[in-house]
Amino acid sequence: MQISELSDRSGLTVQTIKFYIREELLPKGTASGATRAEYDEGHLERLRLIRALREVGDLPVAAIRRILAAVENDAVGMHDLFGTTQYAIGPHVTPPDDPHWRAARQDVDALIAELGWHVTDRAPARDLLAQTFVALRRLGFPVTLTDLRPYVHAAAEVAEHEIGRVTDGAPRSRTVHSMLVSTVLYEQVLTALHRLAQEDASARRFGTAEG
Amino acid sequence: MQISELSDRSGLTVQTIKFYIREELLPKGTASGATRAEYDEGHLERLRLIRALREVGDLPVAAIRRILAAVENDAVGMHDLFGTTQYAIGPHVTPPDDPHWRAARQDVDALIAELGWHVTDRAPARDLLAQTFVALRRLGFPVTLTDLRPYVHAAAEVAEHEIGRVTDGAPRSRTVHSMLVSTVLYEQVLTALHRLAQEDASARRFGTAEG
Repeated sequence: MQISELSDRSGLTVQTIKFYIREELLPKGTASGATRAEYDEGHLERLRLIRALREVGDLPVAAIRRILAAVENDAVGMHDLFGTTQYAIGPHVTPPDDPHWRAARQDVDALIAELGWHVTDRAPARDLLAQTFVALRRLGFPVTLTDLRPYVHAAAEVAEHEIGRVTDGAPRSRTVHSMLVSTVLYEQVLTALHRLAQEDASARRFGTAEG
Repeated sequence: MQISELSDRSGLTVQTIKFYIREELLPKGTASGATRAEYDEGHLERLRLIRALREVGDLPVAAIRRILAAVENDAVGMHDLFGTTQYAIGPHVTPPDDPHWRAARQDVDALIAELGWHVTDRAPARDLLAQTFVALRRLGFPVTLTDLRPYVHAAAEVAEHEIGRVTDGAPRSRTVHSMLVSTVLYEQVLTALHRLAQEDASARRFGTAEG
């Protein structure tokens, strides 16, 4: 297909596609004349992934380049490909150097060890969780394993489902795309459903004004 | 206690406390001399709630005033008190007037009806969820009830636990405080745990590089 069709089908402007080619995020098309190039379904799929990484993951070009390199390098296993993607996605917390933070981060590390979860030391979500522990304690809400248990259980259940949905042998770029979407967009789905479920649970426990 | 002790114990500056008194978020102390006033535990608890609403809920003074009025008015039932708080917390979505949005919002409404959840039509989380449906479809991920089921189940389980934790007969301001914290901070706990659990599920399914 020509660049105009690629633009139509990807929902990206010709200018944006040319920018991605200059930045070497997208391979050039095959020359089919002095000023024409042909693009294929591989280009389209690649563009859809780039678009998702930019719009959903809000990732800078350098991070997208890193992820695409991992997608193309078959020596990078699925688990590392997933890690490369997830670790690139924000929010990233810069740990302050204070004792409250260090205590919270130790508690997070102890929790993960107790759960027996396989998570690297540099996983950004460790700091994300430590940040919430600091905030909870500052407001006078100590965090105990008992308080955390329902959240741990819910998170594990959802993650198990998400990883289970990955199809063996699917194209790597499609798999990264799905992982990105479950990390970012289904996280927001979970947040919205949590609020709706709270309202329902409150209505059942306390009753609504109408009865 | 005097205002200096109130400042120490609440972690707020004397200037901030005086600002809340001027804004009528906090009642004046009892005059105990020409320039002195006495404050009690009720002032301290109120200040802690205001601090949480500002720092955690990121709420403007007008919204805080509305919530405090509901806390003080015993005619407002627990369920409405909870709704007043939850609906004030962002993010708030301004629905665009386009057919994709309307279709997504109808799907959200149909989902909630099918689940039989007691949620008002004006609940902001309906729009929050509709927004994620629009984004998912734009990226080529249709949303089905089957895809949503694990998230619905996890959200319901967590919400049930949170509402179940509310102690009958606890001070209303303390209850609002806990609700706020579970809506905002435990939502972040859930997000961080979700990412950690994804990494663990991926390690178990695909294996880590070390084996």
